[in-house]
Amino acid sequence: MKDTNCRYCTKGEDIAGIVADLEVSTLYLTKDQSYKGRCILALNDHKTELFQLDPEELQAFSRDMARASKALFEVFRPGKINYAAFGDTYPHVHFHLVPKYEGGKSWGSPFELPLSPDNLASKEELDARIKEIKSRL
Amino acid sequence: MKDTNCRYCTKGEDIAGIVADLEVSTLYLTKDQSYKGRCILALNDHKTELFQLDPEELQAFSRDMARASKALFEVFRPGKINYAAFGDTYPHVHFHLVPKYEGGKSWGSPFELPLSPDNLASKEELDARIKEIKSRL
Repeated sequence: MKDTNCRYCTKGEDIAGIVADLEVSTLYLTKDQSYKGRCILALNDHKTELFQLDPEELQAFSRDMARASKALFEVFRPGKINYAAFGDTYPHVHFHLVPKYEGGKSWGSPFELPLSPDNLASKEELDARIKEIKSRL
Repeated sequence: MKDTNCRYCTKGEDIAGIVADLEVSTLYLTKDQSYKGRCILALNDHKTELFQLDPEELQAFSRDMARASKALFEVFRPGKINYAAFGDTYPHVHFHLVPKYEGGKSWGSPFELPLSPDNLASKEELDARIKEIKSRL
């Protein structure tokens, strides 16, 4: 069920575009691309903790997460992908999927939040990345 | 397969004790308890990215994560649980499960890494927490 007060139900302004609708979640590319390929995977249903998902939804969400991270890995070839769900004040299950690059920004420490407006890629670049990730899903 | 160079295969020094062996992972309480109930859930097998798990292992790992976070929620009643896998330099699949408390440390922003030696609970407290979490699994 959608919650009109929730930024992940209503699509927040830090979202560059939808990469794909997966089994039970939606994969978004974020406008901030200071970590090349950074995405958010948001559960379609408005739930706040992983243990609130019913068993089938949980299984499907884990498949969506593996599928999305594999696509990011194949496109961007990062050293490691970081996966994180915080959401204290936006409690809608969503994971940041953040490719990290050896020797690059925050390598060896947690990626930075909040999303920075200083690292916006151009619309053309964002669209190209969306297309590329989509092709590997 | 265990890797003797990996802190999650060999049990790192930031671990207070094992809470439980779950289906395909091990739940640890961390010594740092600046976020009351903070744990690490580490996959038993030495793999580095979620998409490297075979389908059954991935399903079981998601069940372990839901089960562990539900237990933490029931014991500590946090406002939100944060789930995060970084591991750039310790690339063994493990999630930090970090209960966050409204108005408490880092509420509304990512929890802090690295684990702080300033917030160690006593051995008695750590053991009591391990026991309590275990009883809810």
